[in-house]
Amino acid sequence: MTANATSPTPLTLLGTGAMGSALARAWLAAGHPVTVWNRTATRAQPLLAEGATLAATAAEAVAANQLVVACLLDDASVGDALADADLAGRDLVNLTTGTPGQARDRAAWAQKRGARFLDGGIMATPPMIGQAGVGGYVFYSGSRDLFEEHRDTLAVPTGTTYVGADPGFAALHDVALLSAMSGMFAGISHAFALIRREDIAPKEFAPLLAGWLAAMAPAVHLTAEHLHSGDYTRGVVSNLAMMVAGNTTLLRTAQEQGVSTELLTPYMDLMQRRLAARHSEEDGTGIIDLLLREPGSLR
Amino acid sequence: MTANATSPTPLTLLGTGAMGSALARAWLAAGHPVTVWNRTATRAQPLLAEGATLAATAAEAVAANQLVVACLLDDASVGDALADADLAGRDLVNLTTGTPGQARDRAAWAQKRGARFLDGGIMATPPMIGQAGVGGYVFYSGSRDLFEEHRDTLAVPTGTTYVGADPGFAALHDVALLSAMSGMFAGISHAFALIRREDIAPKEFAPLLAGWLAAMAPAVHLTAEHLHSGDYTRGVVSNLAMMVAGNTTLLRTAQEQGVSTELLTPYMDLMQRRLAARHSEEDGTGIIDLLLREPGSLR
Repeated sequence: MTANATSPTPLTLLGTGAMGSALARAWLAAGHPVTVWNRTATRAQPLLAEGATLAATAAEAVAANQLVVACLLDDASVGDALADADLAGRDLVNLTTGTPGQARDRAAWAQKRGARFLDGGIMATPPMIGQAGVGGYVFYSGSRDLFEEHRDTLAVPTGTTYVGADPGFAALHDVALLSAMSGMFAGISHAFALIRREDIAPKEFAPLLAGWLAAMAPAVHLTAEHLHSGDYTRGVVSNLAMMVAGNTTLLRTAQEQGVSTELLTPYMDLMQRRLAARHSEEDGTGIIDLLLREPGSLR
Repeated sequence: MTANATSPTPLTLLGTGAMGSALARAWLAAGHPVTVWNRTATRAQPLLAEGATLAATAAEAVAANQLVVACLLDDASVGDALADADLAGRDLVNLTTGTPGQARDRAAWAQKRGARFLDGGIMATPPMIGQAGVGGYVFYSGSRDLFEEHRDTLAVPTGTTYVGADPGFAALHDVALLSAMSGMFAGISHAFALIRREDIAPKEFAPLLAGWLAAMAPAVHLTAEHLHSGDYTRGVVSNLAMMVAGNTTLLRTAQEQGVSTELLTPYMDLMQRRLAARHSEEDGTGIIDLLLREPGSLR
């Protein structure tokens, strides 16, 4: 800290579950006065020994500081907890997991009550909070002024990445990355299932798998180029016709090894559909367009 | 090359498609005499200008050198091409894409004809062949003697990773990694679909997505630990109960954004099944066991 640094901003934290507690600890460790509130007060007890102040109600906690961070179970819990709180002039940072639509509605709700609003999507697990160099961060979107003003405080627990004024963008980025990870984990499960009954040590296989996936992840840059230009054939090395031919080997191998193909076939079916629509010179980018539906529709 | 190095091993290459031609060029550039054969001879022509020798038949190509590399369309093409060839005393390296079962059968077939056999699964695209430092490699399995004897020659086009004496292991590793990649690409497609109709530049989103996936790929090490120990709860940070709860946000977001959930639901359904079977303290490792069927069965 430099000689003329201001003293650490005091803040209120609503919600002391695993993530909320980790956040509180990081701020307390950095010297920020932290007022905490939790619906079940006993869960906040361990933080008091570390210097936090317990508020009896969420309204009281909100009254204590201008900067209010919410890290609750879900969006409905945010509405419930803050129903009686006076948000006028407050800076509300909502780190509660939710959809982009919920974040947009919550932003309008907060602004109507006189608060500035910033939504956050946490790309880290509780053990990563407060640990430098582990690569976690929070996507933020909404009030840029709020973000800039509290940037240093927000950067204490983990990294910060501001992704736009639209309050839904943080949740959208969060969910998009988690969805992609879910697909990767599905693929990983299939891969381990293929070797499960062979004399191959999982611990020797894992580094090969991790290295391959990390090496292939940058393929997203070509996809982005395609979406940007609208030309899905540019720079394609393995085209859809080759990929669909290769799928036969993937499916036959699953059958030989006694592994269900249920995690592979939905993507392969989309490849097949796009190929049947005469897009053989593309790679997989066109599959993105096949996923688009009327917004709000089911499936 | 050191003063007492032997001269580069001459070899035969069957199949001059995109991959075969790239391999031939890498060997020719390193000074290896290369005899080529291709079913459609005209496709091999460009290599002759670079120093390759064209054989009129596959049998003639096999007769030219002890080391014979096959890079053909599929396993049936290998059987067809080599039907009349004398394989006695030959070292057959099969880089043709196929299943582990096909590789095992082909190994038995080659041994019966008096050849040593090594199967390979190429983890690289043709443009990566002959380029140092781009991270490609070939999985090899089968005759360890053959591998060791020709190791330097095999290492000329790209990296080499020997994964066992079982001739099916190279194809199994190859297919397992490609299957995992297919899952990752499915997840990536869903992620891009989520932002497709928003004012988010794909080129700004791509680095966030690539970075996140590369950072999460090492999760495979915990999965390997679980499979090794049989205890799927050890070291779990986000357990199945939390993951299933989080899936609600992923599905609702897809609905809000007008994106089909077809690429997400098969994996989520398996999570749900494993959770319903009272495994809430595990992470996703148990899903691997849910994928196992009778070997050879359909689906």
